This record gives sequence, structure tokens and C-alpha cells, in this order.
Amino acid sequence: MKSPPREGIVMRFSWEMCGSTIWGVVAMAVLTVTLSGNLMAQEEAAPAAAVEETATATEAVEETPVEEVGEDAYSSEEYVASEGYSTFTVNNLWICISAALVFIMHLGFTTLESGLTQKKNAVNIIFKNVWIVCTGVLLYAFWGFNAMYPGDFNGYFAVGSWFGQSLNDTAMTTEAYNPGYTWWGDFIFQAMFAATAATIVSGAVAERVKLPVFMLFSMLLVGFAYPITGSWKWGGGWLDQMGFYDFAGSSVVHAFGGFAALACVLILGPRTGKFTASGTQTIAGHSMPLAAIGVFLLWLGWFGFNGGSALSADPKAVSYVFVTTSLAACAGAVASILTSYAVLSRPDVSMALNGILAGLVGITAGADVVGEGSSIIIGLVAGVLVVISILALEKLKIDDPVGAVSVHGVCGVWGTVAVGLFSFGGHSLLTQIYGTLAIGAFGFIFSAVVFGALKAAFGVRVSVEEETVGLDISEHGMAAYPADTVPTPA
Amino acid sequence: MKSPPREGIVMRFSWEMCGSTIWGVVAMAVLTVTLSGNLMAQEEAAPAAAVEETATATEAVEETPVEEVGEDAYSSEEYVASEGYSTFTVNNLWICISAALVFIMHLGFTTLESGLTQKKNAVNIIFKNVWIVCTGVLLYAFWGFNAMYPGDFNGYFAVGSWFGQSLNDTAMTTEAYNPGYTWWGDFIFQAMFAATAATIVSGAVAERVKLPVFMLFSMLLVGFAYPITGSWKWGGGWLDQMGFYDFAGSSVVHAFGGFAALACVLILGPRTGKFTASGTQTIAGHSMPLAAIGVFLLWLGWFGFNGGSALSADPKAVSYVFVTTSLAACAGAVASILTSYAVLSRPDVSMALNGILAGLVGITAGADVVGEGSSIIIGLVAGVLVVISILALEKLKIDDPVGAVSVHGVCGVWGTVAVGLFSFGGHSLLTQIYGTLAIGAFGFIFSAVVFGALKAAFGVRVSVEEETVGLDISEHGMAAYPADTVPTPA
Amino acid sequence: MKSPPREGIVMRFSWEMCGSTIWGVVAMAVLTVTLSGNLMAQEEAAPAAAVEETATATEAVEETPVEEVGEDAYSSEEYVASEGYSTFTVNNLWICISAALVFIMHLGFTTLESGLTQKKNAVNIIFKNVWIVCTGVLLYAFWGFNAMYPGDFNGYFAVGSWFGQSLNDTAMTTEAYNPGYTWWGDFIFQAMFAATAATIVSGAVAERVKLPVFMLFSMLLVGFAYPITGSWKWGGGWLDQMGFYDFAGSSVVHAFGGFAALACVLILGPRTGKFTASGTQTIAGHSMPLAAIGVFLLWLGWFGFNGGSALSADPKAVSYVFVTTSLAACAGAVASILTSYAVLSRPDVSMALNGILAGLVGITAGADVVGEGSSIIIGLVAGVLVVISILALEKLKIDDPVGAVSVHGVCGVWGTVAVGLFSFGGHSLLTQIYGTLAIGAFGFIFSAVVFGALKAAFGVRVSVEEETVGLDISEHGMAAYPADTVPTPA
Repeated sequence: MKSPPREGIVMRFSWEMCGSTIWGVVAMAVLTVTLSGNLMAQEEAAPAAAVEETATATEAVEETPVEEVGEDAYSSEEYVASEGYSTFTVNNLWICISAALVFIMHLGFTTLESGLTQKKNAVNIIFKNVWIVCTGVLLYAFWGFNAMYPGDFNGYFAVGSWFGQSLNDTAMTTEAYNPGYTWWGDFIFQAMFAATAATIVSGAVAERVKLPVFMLFSMLLVGFAYPITGSWKWGGGWLDQMGFYDFAGSSVVHAFGGFAALACVLILGPRTGKFTASGTQTIAGHSMPLAAIGVFLLWLGWFGFNGGSALSADPKAVSYVFVTTSLAACAGAVASILTSYAVLSRPDVSMALNGILAGLVGITAGADVVGEGSSIIIGLVAGVLVVISILALEKLKIDDPVGAVSVHGVCGVWGTVAVGLFSFGGHSLLTQIYGTLAIGAFGFIFSAVVFGALKAAFGVRVSVEEETVGLDISEHGMAAYPADTVPTPA
Repeated sequence: MKSPPREGIVMRFSWEMCGSTIWGVVAMAVLTVTLSGNLMAQEEAAPAAAVEETATATEAVEETPVEEVGEDAYSSEEYVASEGYSTFTVNNLWICISAALVFIMHLGFTTLESGLTQKKNAVNIIFKNVWIVCTGVLLYAFWGFNAMYPGDFNGYFAVGSWFGQSLNDTAMTTEAYNPGYTWWGDFIFQAMFAATAATIVSGAVAERVKLPVFMLFSMLLVGFAYPITGSWKWGGGWLDQMGFYDFAGSSVVHAFGGFAALACVLILGPRTGKFTASGTQTIAGHSMPLAAIGVFLLWLGWFGFNGGSALSADPKAVSYVFVTTSLAACAGAVASILTSYAVLSRPDVSMALNGILAGLVGITAGADVVGEGSSIIIGLVAGVLVVISILALEKLKIDDPVGAVSVHGVCGVWGTVAVGLFSFGGHSLLTQIYGTLAIGAFGFIFSAVVFGALKAAFGVRVSVEEETVGLDISEHGMAAYPADTVPTPA
Repeated sequence: MKSPPREGIVMRFSWEMCGSTIWGVVAMAVLTVTLSGNLMAQEEAAPAAAVEETATATEAVEETPVEEVGEDAYSSEEYVASEGYSTFTVNNLWICISAALVFIMHLGFTTLESGLTQKKNAVNIIFKNVWIVCTGVLLYAFWGFNAMYPGDFNGYFAVGSWFGQSLNDTAMTTEAYNPGYTWWGDFIFQAMFAATAATIVSGAVAERVKLPVFMLFSMLLVGFAYPITGSWKWGGGWLDQMGFYDFAGSSVVHAFGGFAALACVLILGPRTGKFTASGTQTIAGHSMPLAAIGVFLLWLGWFGFNGGSALSADPKAVSYVFVTTSLAACAGAVASILTSYAVLSRPDVSMALNGILAGLVGITAGADVVGEGSSIIIGLVAGVLVVISILALEKLKIDDPVGAVSVHGVCGVWGTVAVGLFSFGGHSLLTQIYGTLAIGAFGFIFSAVVFGALKAAFGVRVSVEEETVGLDISEHGMAAYPADTVPTPA
């Protein structure tokens, strides 16, 4: 349930200038300065209009200090008093709060991934996640937003441009733009979404990927690839026109990220010591409390991820999505616990945690259209699938330290297909299968080509020595948990 | 301030089939499939109606893609334009956000309890908390919701049934159901509440309880006992009819959970090595930062726990409850710090943290009806009480590793009684005392009987060897903080 | 964009009675009892009025149980049905949610500061942060709120009084008070803000400050000094009358706190072993995951800090502020990463984290009035500045363990000045410079005088032995991460 494509300011942006991570960022800075010069010209119109407005309302001028001119520009008195303003206000507020909730998923991913990996790579994981969310949001502003929700679009690819909109363009901040949110609310919610796709990959390649290569790859994935497949569905592209349904992104975000991760781990290979002649070794994560913090924060964030995808605060839609999302998460955990107990003969806490995520990923495609009972079944199946998939990938000697391919890839596909099985709104099972495979395949192929090219050009993997020492020391020159510098006397 | 009892679909549910934890869950899965089959029949009516609705609004059909049929079913245009819709929308949104805030209390409990116990039992605590919230929400859907807010009720016991409601029943998603929330908002908020009761027990029995026994016990406590006492007050039962007042659950949730915990620790006995011939030993928690994260998250969640108990977003009620809740928490911490300093001669951080919780539990019964000054006094008294109670239980050789009995039991009773002392709305002190003792006694007796029976049947305590090794290794076969698997060279 | 000064109940409060921390708190308790006695008299009027109100609406009385009398007092039916109620409800809800978000910044500061310092001082940092937020909110109730937003005011200093307002004063809980919030929403949002100022100092003086002295100092800073400078701008004082602009507190909160911190670290001196004959030593923080949790939570809280400073849920204002706040945070991190890479030749994770905070502090003064492009530039400059400043302070042998002076002081000034450079609303660059220097200077001078006097009276620094052992053991008698008490057999 995403907004139909809208008329954006489409402007060509030469991505080729970003030849490397560093250059990309320098370019971003230069671009920012240049663009903001242009934008200032646009923005400069705003206060003038505001002054005019307040000038006609002379009594307001007398009451308000100088800086409240800006405030008046935000909400003219006539508009605030108009019918519909309060509904629009609560709708937009919920989209903004949802953006904040999706934002906190980045902390969830950071703590989950670092908790499920070794102590000597925790700094590296934190650094990567900071990088992804920060460059992800900036790149979505520079290119992704107008590429994913384009005005000029052939159904497969849109060019994209700077997201900028004059602060003073009233049409962008009232129901005239969308009954559910302003242009700015729309952007920040979608920008926080976008960055999650690359974060999924981050966990899968942990403990052995070269940092600068991953920094560049993640920028290309969030900045370039995600808006393309996203636009296929949410931008009104060819999958949307086929009737494909993906409420909040089981495919658009999760299967996309999960299969991108699969391509990367296949190219990268397993961690040293994982698969040896004497068998498969469990490389335990260094902190289960950190992992638990991560999963609970992800669940919290999912209330915004799914709830905000109602694209308004509509009481029925938001509350129903909260219920299906939670039931699926609960069922996923219970199923994972039982499955892992049956298979591994012990109640495995990391499986329980991944079961919650499996249920959440599974319900994401159909949270608004499946029944309550169905949401439990979707969660149960996801919870079983994630355990089987994690164990199967190990058998296949595919090393995914945090289970990202299983949680996001496998359960993302399942959730999308489940819409065809459990919804009653005319969503074709075949279209659902077709759509999720198309999106997953694009994520996989894009990553295979780009990550493969990076491997050929620079290598994607640190040396065995660096891996053994840990990326924290070898890439960052610091430990995650240093001993006290000024030693305590005995 | 809870909704009056409502007409629910009452259906008999044979709980006896759930003879053990595993069987219970299997039964839940089977039931789910069966029920959802039935529900699908109900739900199937929905899209048909939706199609009719959109068919009459032909211009809407032309503008919206296929999947938005579901969306139209949520919010018919006439309703959205109606007077009152925006107030209902903001009310329901606040209840949903409150549910998310109460949800995060489960992470708060997880981190607090694991922080205040030993390193070797952290996995076990995380696992138990995941289990409680996940089965708690599911059981509340299967039985608790319709038992606690029943339609057919003798004032002491209601039968309960699956919470299911057709997605298409408009009466359940408008003010016609309740001016403050939809049926779904109501359920998810109350379900997140329910699971907190068992979490309180989890901390008290930590470090020595048998996992499968606790898993089963917690299911019975959340799924069966909590809805019974809850219905006495919030379901319109006999305590409610007596004029007993408990705004957000000082008794219904906290005293209930605290006295259930007391019964369990009495049956379970103290941790090995806690009370020895040479005196009482302090068994320190393994991570104060984890404990601090827990308490701050609990405080955050309490804004939803108490604020959401206004059952709408009414500006006066919500903002006033935020103020009294915060003042009591602050006063609780200050009083605990001073009291522990006076008694222990040092500024004890775990007492400071428990003081915050004491203040929060204390204000919960009367957050909407006591004055600001009174909220500070309630918090101060709670902060003193919690320290005295923790030390007194130690003297009595009752071992409660996280102070759950003192925080939730003692301060829950205090908060309920305080309504009789400090409110001016005609709340009788005697009724308050009577009500809180009744609820606490039920929690205690239920737990004594059920936990006692489990002790007789299976034993409730791990062996001394398992306790010494720690439950993480003995029950789960893994450590919370494993060393790096691939060792770093010297 | 703060509310204009309002008519408050001004009452003289003799602060001199609080000669020491302990006495201050005892005085607070006594005062509470005394005041609440008086307040009860005021509050007692409420239920009477409520009863009258419900008595006239006889059908309501018949339907509602006894305790709902209180509820009726909150929201009379006529008011709820009135035009504007729903807009007021969503506005007030957003201010309350913002208060909860600003509250969680205190957990962010707690985890950030403890993560960036040594393991042996983590308990001490947690304790200090609990103390600051708890006494901060209480003191703001007792004095700060009515001092900062005074009714009787010479433009430089207001006397202040207990914040109490009768629960039944309808004028305080409707648009009649303010279109954006009730009296209670106003208080709780501003109280959570107030406590952040002292928290900034807490990190800078970590690892060597005497606990009781800091406890007293922080109370004076939050309770006395912050409301004074705050009133200069947000209370309608002389800076406000000059046209000085500070949207959410780059100066009022951050520069104030940062320069107060600078005065304290200058008086306190560096940690033992930081600057030795053989050079400057890096004293590494003990947990990067804790630090990361802190920064992400601070960013989350900033959505309330800045978003709530719109002082309503106005769609344009809130969503626009979310966008500029996030863009600046992202740009700050990218700039800090590149700058630290250029200077230190490694991707430093603590610089990346401080870069996020630098961007957030920088955008805070102008989040509502600068363009999107400008918000990126402000963030980029802040990200560069913070690295340069941290390194420069080290060169100057000024020891600030967490970089508080650089993040909050330097970037707070930058953000305030940037409003003069990048906004188009007539904010004079000179006035901005003048205002931020005035506020920073007051923070610095107040702290220099008070902390200097405390040094002369009691000493502000622990002994070298205590510092070496760590404050956790020497001040609190406990460790942050104790080993398991009941040892695991080999």
C-alpha cells in the first residue's frame, strides 16, 4: 500500500563521478554546496511569501517576535482551521514517528549483528552500520527518492534527482500532496526504509569483508539498486501494474536484501576455520544480551515499518497491522524454539531470536490483508523455515554469520507468497511468486555483478592474518572492549 | 480507568489438552490452523463487502490499483469525512503507540534481570523473556482477552475464547466500539500488558529454576490466572463493583506479579551459596550497564503503560499522567539513594535503579487522580519501602535476585493503598486495601498451588551441579559471552 | 520557537537552605510534604467541580462507575465535541511523546559516557546520570519551570516557584493555555530538556570527579543556572527581544552545557596518566557497543528534542525538522569519518559516532529555518569541527574523556551562528554570535565560580589512589561487571 507515482523534479545526476567511496563522498559534499546554492534561490522565495502573508494579518505581526515569521509560513491560520487539518496532522505525525521507529531498527541491526559475531569484529560492524544509515539517507536524498517514486518513468528505470523541494511550496505540505503525509514525511520515512536493505547484507559478510569495498558496495546497493526494484512496485512500475502485492516490503526490502547478501557470501567465501576437514565449527556470537537488544529493538521498529506502511494513521489499518505483526513475531519465535529443540535437542536462544525476525519478515508483505489466524500460521511457517534454512546453508558450506539470508531472503519470499495463499483480495499466487523472484533475482544479480567486479578490481576479502587478528584491530586500529588504560593496582 | 465489559464471542476452550509446555504449543498450532479455517470463512465476507463499497464509488476504483481494495475496506470515505474521525484516529494511534511502549518494557525486563544476575545465566533469562512475551500474546489471543473483558460473566470467572473478530466488522473499528480505540488497538495494548505479569516472576526465580517447568508455569500465569484477577477490576467484576480503583495496574499487574513471585521463591528456595553458615553473601549482578538500560527502558515503557491507560489521547489525562509518573519515578530514585546511603553507607546504584521502578509501580494505581505533590510523596515512600523490603527479605532468608517481590509486590500494594490516602474522588481506603490484598492473595495462592504441584510432579529446581555450572550451559548448551572461536594470535 | 512568557504563580523559594546535596534533598522532601499539603487544598476543589459537572449530566453518572468521576473532570463532553479539540489533542500528544523521546536521551548519554570511559568507572557514570535526570526533573518542578517561563520578570532574572497547577484548572488544559499543549505537557517536555544540560558536563568530568560534589553541582546547574539563560531566550528575556534565534537549543542547551563542561575540566585537571612526560596517552573507552547504543538513542531522542520544539504537531514543521535533523546527523558522520581518516589515517568509530552528535547539535538552532541543502552543509562543517576540536583540546592538554566540550560547546556555537548564515528569515549573524557567546559565557562563568568554590570548600577531585582503583569501587563499593559469585567449576 504505497503512494502512486508522483510528479517529481527529475534532474540528471552523474553517478559516474563517484569512482570510489572517498571520491563519492567528496562529490556529495561538493554537490551539496552547489545544489544548496541553487536551492537557496528557491528557498529565498519562502520568507518573502511569509512576510506578505503576515503583513495582511497585521495583528499577528504585532504579537509574534521576528523569528515566528518562519512558523507562520508553516501553518497559515486559515489552513489550520480548515476541515481535514487535524486528520492530516495525525496521519503525518504517525508517518514521522514511524520514520523514527524504522530508524531505531538500524540500532537493532547494529547490536544484533555485533552480538552474533565475534568480539574482535564489533567495532567494524558498528562502523559499517553507521556508514550505511548515514550515506543511505544522503544518497536517497540525492537520487533514490525521485528515482523510486518518479514522475518520468518507463516502468523499469527512472533517472532520479535531488529530492529538494522548496520549503515554501504549500502544495507539498498539505493533503494536496497526499492525505497521509507531507513531502518531507514521505521522504524521511522512505529514506529510513531504504538504508535497511544494505544493513541486511552487512551481517552476512561480517568478520571477513574489506571495509572500503563494503562501504562502496553498500552505497551502490542503497543508492542505486534498491530504488530501482522499489520503483517496480511502490513507484508504480511493471510489478505494480501486474497486480503484485507487497504491503511493507517482504520482497522489496527483505528478499532483495537477503538475496543480495547470498550473492555476496558466495563470492566472499566462508570465514576461515568455519568449514574444516574435521567438520563444521560453530563460531559463536560474543554477546547474547547485545543480540537480544537487537531483536527487541527490531520488533519495536517493525511497528513503524509495517504500521507506517498503512501510509496514514487510519485506526483500523494501523491497529490491525500491529496485531498481525505481533502475532506473527510471537508464532515465529515459538516455532523456531520447537523446531530447534527437535533438531538440536536444546532450546537455542539465537534460534528463538531469529524466529521472531522470521515471523516479522514473513508477515510484512500481507500484514494488512491476511486474517489473524493466518498471521499466526505465516509466523509459524516462517519460524520453521528459518531454522531449516540456517542449518541447510551450513550443510551447503555457505557461511552467513547472522542468518541474514535465511531470515530476510527465505522468509521474505515466504511472506510474499503467503499473500497469495492467505489473502482474500484477489492477489494471485503466481503473480506473488513471480514478483518476489524478480526482486530477489535482481538483488542477487546486481550484487553478483557489482561485488564480483569489486573482487576483480580490489579484492573483497581481508587477508587471513587480518581476519585472525580481527577487523577491529586490522581495519580500525582499536578494540571494542579495551582493558582499562590506567591499570587497577592488585 | 478501563473500558466496561463488552459483549464478546464466548466459546469454550479446553485447556486440559495442554498437559505440558510442548504439547501446549503443539495444541496452539493445531488450534490455530483449525480456528483460522473457521476465521477464513468469516474473513472471506470482508473483501466482498469492500468490493461492493468501492463499486458504488466508481471514481475511486478508477484511481486506485487492485490492492487498494483492502485499504478502502479499512476506511470508507464517508467515515473519514465524518465528525469525530480525527479524534478517534489520534486516540487509537496513542493506544497503538502505547502498546509499542509497553512492548519495549519486555526488553527492559530482559536487560534488567540479566544485568542483575550472574553472567552464567544470561542466556537463560533472555530465553525465558522471549518465551513469556511470545506465548503471552498468543495465549491472550486464544483465551485471555475474552476472559478478561467478557460478555458472559458471573463477576468472578469468565470462560474466554479466541479473540478473533472479522476484519470487516466495522462496528469493531469505529467509535461504535469505543471512543478511544478499535477492537485491535484494545487487544494489542492489553496483550502487551498481560505478558508483563509473568515477566515479574521470571526475575525472582532466576539462576535456579528448571526451564521447562518455568515455561509451563509462565503460560498458566499469563494465560489463565492474570485474566481472572484482571477481570475482577477491569472486566467489570466484583472488585470494580465495590468501587476499587486501580488506574493502570499497581495491583492488577504489579502486586499480582510480585506476590506470585513470592510464592515461587518460597517454594524454590534460595540460590546455593546465598545463605550460608558464615552469613549472607551478596551475589552481584554481572552488568550494571545492562541493568541501567533495563530500568531506563522500563521508565520509557511506563509512559505507555500509564499514559495509554488513559484509554484515549485526551490532552489533560495523558499529559497529567506523564507528569505524575515521572515525578514519582524521580522521587523514588532520590529516596532509595538516600535510604541506601543511610543504611549501607554507600551510594548503591542498584538501589537507585530499583528506586525508579518503585516510584513507577507506586504511582501506577493513582497516576490520574492524585495531585502532583502527592505523586512525589508516593514516589518517596515507595523508594524508602523498596530498600527496606529488599533488606528485610534478605534477613528473612528469602532470595529474590532482582528485588521483584519488593519492587512489584510491596510497592504495588503501597501504590494501591495510596489512592485511598491521596485521591479526592471518593476512593475508600478500606476498599483499596481490600482489593489489593485480594489480588495479591490470588496471585500468591495460584502460584503456590500450581508451582507447588509442578514441584511435586517434576521438581522445580535444577541440580546443584547445574546451578553451579550455570543455566546457560546446563539448559541451553551455550554461553552468553563466548570467547572468540578463531583465536587471536598473541 | 518557544512559547511567549506566561503568567505563572511566582512565589519566593529560599534556595540557601540547601547547603549540601543531602540537605538539599531532605529539604526537597520536606518542601514536598508542605507544598503538597497546600496543593491538596487547591486540588480538593477539583473533584467537587467534577461532581457538579457530572451531576448536571445525569445520564453520564448513571453509566459510569465511581472512579470515572475523575475522568469526566478531564474531558467534559462539550469540550471534546468542540471544533479544534482533535487538533489540540494531536498537538499535545506529540509534545508528550517528544518528552518521552527526550527522556530516552538520558539513557543515550548514560550508555555513551560509560562506553567511552573505562570499565572501572561505569557504575559511577550510571549513578550520576540517574541522579541528574531525577533531581533535574524535581528541581524544575520546584523552581526551574516558573523561573524559565516567568510571569514577573526583568528580562535577566526571574524568581521562580513550585510549578503546581490545580488539576481542575481547565484554562491550563485547553487551547486557552496554548494551542500546542497543556500546562502539564509543557512542563514535562521542558523538564526533560532541562536535565540534559547537566548530563553534558557529566561526561567531561568523568573518571576523576568527587561524587557528592558533582551531585551538588549538577543540581545547581540544572536547577538554578539553566533556567536563567533559558529564560533569556525562551522565556522572552533580553536575547529574545534582541531577535536572537535558537530553535531547539544549540545555544540554550548545548553551548551552555559544553562551556559549563569546559570550565569544570579546566578546574578539575586531566586524568592521571593522560598527559605524561612521554606524551599524550589514549585512554580508550571500555565498550564501543555501549557507545553506539548511546549515540543511536540520542539520535532517536533528537527527533523529539527538535521535532517537539515545533511546539505542535504541525505537519509541515514536524516533518521538515525530521528531515533537516537527519540530514545533518548523516552529514556530520560522513564528514567526521573522512576528517578522522585524513588526520588519523584510520576509520575511527568514536569519531564517526561523535560526528553524528556534532551534526545533531549543529542543526538544532536552525532545524526549522534552514534549507535541506544547508542542513547538509551545517552537518558537514560540524563533523569537521568536532574532530579538529577534539584533537586541539588534546594538544592543549585539556582532558575531556567523551568529547563533550567539542560536541556540545563548539558545535553548539557553530549551529547558532549557522542560523545567521543559512536562514532567510532576517536572523542577524551578529545577533546570533552575540547570543551564543552570552549563553556560553554564562555557562562557563557560572561553572567556574560554583565549581571553583566547591573546589576551595571540599575539593572536587578524588585522590590518585581512588582514581587508580576506579570510582566504582572507591565511591560505590561495587564493580560494573562483577565476576560470578558462585564460581563455575573448571
